[in-house]
Amino acid sequence: MSITYANLTAIAKTLSNIPKWLEKAEAYAKEKSFDPAVLLTSRLAPDQFPLLRQVQIASDWVKNGHARLADKPPPAHPDSEQTLEELRARVGTCLAYVATFRSEDFGAAETRLITSTRTPGKGALGADYVRETVVPNFYFHATTTYAILRHNGVPLGKRDFIGEVTLQAL
Amino acid sequence: MSITYANLTAIAKTLSNIPKWLEKAEAYAKEKSFDPAVLLTSRLAPDQFPLLRQVQIASDWVKNGHARLADKPPPAHPDSEQTLEELRARVGTCLAYVATFRSEDFGAAETRLITSTRTPGKGALGADYVRETVVPNFYFHATTTYAILRHNGVPLGKRDFIGEVTLQAL
Repeated sequence: MSITYANLTAIAKTLSNIPKWLEKAEAYAKEKSFDPAVLLTSRLAPDQFPLLRQVQIASDWVKNGHARLADKPPPAHPDSEQTLEELRARVGTCLAYVATFRSEDFGAAETRLITSTRTPGKGALGADYVRETVVPNFYFHATTTYAILRHNGVPLGKRDFIGEVTLQAL
Repeated sequence: MSITYANLTAIAKTLSNIPKWLEKAEAYAKEKSFDPAVLLTSRLAPDQFPLLRQVQIASDWVKNGHARLADKPPPAHPDSEQTLEELRARVGTCLAYVATFRSEDFGAAETRLITSTRTPGKGALGADYVRETVVPNFYFHATTTYAILRHNGVPLGKRDFIGEVTLQAL
């Protein structure tokens, strides 16, 4: 498996944990009798994106990471979610999209230059782009999502963040 | 470069950004006339590790990730830091250690089973361990470090988190 695809499957796996955190958030809101929508606009600093946007962006890094590195146009996922349930569905739509990719879609990814309007005249090799840009940005927004929920008392632990890992018998 | 070493160099690169965040935190404390040590014990939830511990753990994932995957005993880095300056030095010690590794140290890493007392009778292939355990855990603690600082008003932005990326001329 290419470095690119191996890393993309890893962030998709972590993304698949986020709907479970949101379910725990809904259960916590119910237990404490507060409107779960409060969590969607919660943030850790006034000039930081709230939970709703953090999940949308985490999802977009997974979607666009796959699309850009496979050199395919990404589907539009409008940022229209207004509930935790809709946000879970957004993540599901992203995961269904990236499940259509195969290792061979990334055959040329590692040596192709990925361009950005932010860096005119320059580009990042796919192999660098996935490790230095896609993966860190994804985990940044996934962890911030988790941190906002923890800060608001949602009972989550590191195991919820990491999820299942692939093990072999010794 | 192997998947393993490529991913380890990426997290070491992000770790090298953390001392710069701590410097900005010290400057902010000076500007606002508060004791910078307050930040070391700051946390986002009462049952979550404070900043000091987050940086130590982020550093340890980089150190132990390299050591375990290269099958070498990691050096002891005692958790004795009490100031932001000492914490920056701790990160520096870790970075100096991991700079001694070369791609060939990880030649057998991808197919060797990495064991843990938490999963008796089972182990993770190195290639899975680095992507599913080392990288997510590292970014979890690096992002939580960043989030604690942002929550306390330290002027940091996404660019401080990501740092420099490797670019090529088009």
